[in-house]
Amino acid sequence: MRSLAELKLESYRKGEPPLSDHEIKELATLLPEWQVVEIQGIKRLERVYTFKNFVQALAFTQQVGELAEAEDHHPALLTEWGRVKVSWWTHFVKGLHRNDFIIAAKTDQLYAA
Amino acid sequence: MRSLAELKLESYRKGEPPLSDHEIKELATLLPEWQVVEIQGIKRLERVYTFKNFVQALAFTQQVGELAEAEDHHPALLTEWGRVKVSWWTHFVKGLHRNDFIIAAKTDQLYAA
Repeated sequence: MRSLAELKLESYRKGEPPLSDHEIKELATLLPEWQVVEIQGIKRLERVYTFKNFVQALAFTQQVGELAEAEDHHPALLTEWGRVKVSWWTHFVKGLHRNDFIIAAKTDQLYAA
Repeated sequence: MRSLAELKLESYRKGEPPLSDHEIKELATLLPEWQVVEIQGIKRLERVYTFKNFVQALAFTQQVGELAEAEDHHPALLTEWGRVKVSWWTHFVKGLHRNDFIIAAKTDQLYAA
């Protein structure tokens, strides 16, 4: 079985809904370090990564930003001294899409590398 | 008169308190595009900068990060598609210090450059 991080992001279908709570629960078991949070009615996947200093945190932000641009799927990245909070969600479906879980897994790979 | 952005950041005095509301009000007149917000009892200076796309926003985050590291004064940088929210405050005084206004003015200079 291929890991989530190896999958390709999918195109959106017209009128596609966000993932249901049941689908989210299933996919979330594959990413135990991510939290599902809801902000202004829109669910997001969030994880805080920690670092030894500001420079390492900023370098990770840059790496995740390059991944985001390459995949044309853009997160919110909160960079502070020693930490980066990454939030993924999909504007097109106004919530979580399978793509958010795939790119979250790819983000974990960057951190582990 | 030298502009705020040309001033150097100051060392902290032992036991130094944060700026008073009166001092904040005076300095804030020099930076009309910044808001003073309070998060968990700690005042911060915040400004949202806008950009044409994600790449430009990420490049600005990198620039502000390099300024922060050079000055050894570190912000929170929230990078999203087309926008970066910059927040300055001073851990040492648990609130706002004159340095936050100086570095906010330097941040504006980076944006204008």
